[in-house]
Amino acid sequence: MKAIAKYHARAQAVESMVCVGLDSDPARLPERFGGDVAAFNRWIIDQTHPFACAYKPNIAFYEARGGDGWRDLAQTMDYLRAHHPAVLTICDAKRGDNSTSNRGYVAEIFDRLGFDAVTLHPYMGRASNAPFLERADKGCIILCRTSNPGDDELQNMEIDGKPLWQVVAERVRDAWNANGNCMLVMGATHLREIAQARQIVGDMPLLVPGVGAQGGDVEAAVRAGRDSTGGGLIINASRSIIYADDPAAAAQALQASINAVS
Amino acid sequence: MKAIAKYHARAQAVESMVCVGLDSDPARLPERFGGDVAAFNRWIIDQTHPFACAYKPNIAFYEARGGDGWRDLAQTMDYLRAHHPAVLTICDAKRGDNSTSNRGYVAEIFDRLGFDAVTLHPYMGRASNAPFLERADKGCIILCRTSNPGDDELQNMEIDGKPLWQVVAERVRDAWNANGNCMLVMGATHLREIAQARQIVGDMPLLVPGVGAQGGDVEAAVRAGRDSTGGGLIINASRSIIYADDPAAAAQALQASINAVS
Repeated sequence: MKAIAKYHARAQAVESMVCVGLDSDPARLPERFGGDVAAFNRWIIDQTHPFACAYKPNIAFYEARGGDGWRDLAQTMDYLRAHHPAVLTICDAKRGDNSTSNRGYVAEIFDRLGFDAVTLHPYMGRASNAPFLERADKGCIILCRTSNPGDDELQNMEIDGKPLWQVVAERVRDAWNANGNCMLVMGATHLREIAQARQIVGDMPLLVPGVGAQGGDVEAAVRAGRDSTGGGLIINASRSIIYADDPAAAAQALQASINAVS
Repeated sequence: MKAIAKYHARAQAVESMVCVGLDSDPARLPERFGGDVAAFNRWIIDQTHPFACAYKPNIAFYEARGGDGWRDLAQTMDYLRAHHPAVLTICDAKRGDNSTSNRGYVAEIFDRLGFDAVTLHPYMGRASNAPFLERADKGCIILCRTSNPGDDELQNMEIDGKPLWQVVAERVRDAWNANGNCMLVMGATHLREIAQARQIVGDMPLLVPGVGAQGGDVEAAVRAGRDSTGGGLIINASRSIIYADDPAAAAQALQASINAVS
């Protein structure tokens, strides 16, 4: 099944737009895991999968530990594919190189690790990202308007009366999405921009990080960003779920707060 | 020694601005290596170090093979540090995430693998890249004007009469370079832009990929980009050196063609 269809099917089946960010730091795990990230991730997945449409490990947390981290990531993906194959898997890698090099990332992220989708930088242009975009079965989630200190610096530069991030959204809609496999990253703290992005891209799914520990308002983000069917969002929380005393309750609470938006 | 000082010292000591791109693909190695990338890299380094100011593995070629690739990369870095500690090492990773995640990349690229410098995406802004920029001992090489099909798509968008890449160059000069550790990527195929970048950033070193197999004109790039002392360029060739019948001769020939520019 194609990545975006898989997302929609899962979101409908469990009535959830919650994405759990598996940004697992060995120094922050409950003591009983003894720093074993793969075991911790299995536990988080066991706890949260009834409430999750997607899992999204940020690769930096794994790459920080070299081969050990990559092994934990591969084991986590093996576990997800074996036990929860219907849940969308997003590799939050923020990659983007020339097309020759990107083929290496495609081999690793899509084919070896088996992720359904990846996050990508737009700066080098559509053609450089073609090795990702040409994989019609996989999802390409382009950084558009991020939610981090300093995100304005380039993303709000004005081009013909429009901020750069809007130009990116239009380019993705008009030129990058030939295979219908594109999505955008729209940070939860930018409510007006989320609503504008929804106008620009129609029903294209939006990955919305920045709720939970990063402080975005869930209800307002849902109102601003939902598509014509009331869905189409992948709302990510990482620390506020995985380091909660009860991760299942935290994921379920986020699901409930999303679904309560009228 | 700080990364940029290390570059200048090495470039002067061997009279070379040649950077060897260790984009080693196991399928393209001479048969006698049996696909052993670490052994191939050691041989390339043995052959080319008298003519090299820098080595630059593109991480995608290693990440493509998961843990095996990361082991090859770590072994290559161990070899460089043990035998050629004066040569600048550049991790061509094109990373760029929020500051929390970037700390993971810093831990891996600067501290665990021990690279002197890294290539970075500008899209999320200076503050997100602070974990790299704050490492005054390390070099931060920001993607500015790349040389790949489609590089115009965003990089030439006009902002107040200037292309986006010029805005990036000015931001790096004015706001990102507080520790004097920034450099820019300026692709060899854009000669006019290389000259403009030199005007903008003064004597900041420029990493110039795209000569050799990618077709950039070495002599013209040197004329366009050299700094006020006649140096300041890191001219990268990958395939045209590492897959040459005689890599030493190929590196030496590139050095000679650079140094012949009057």
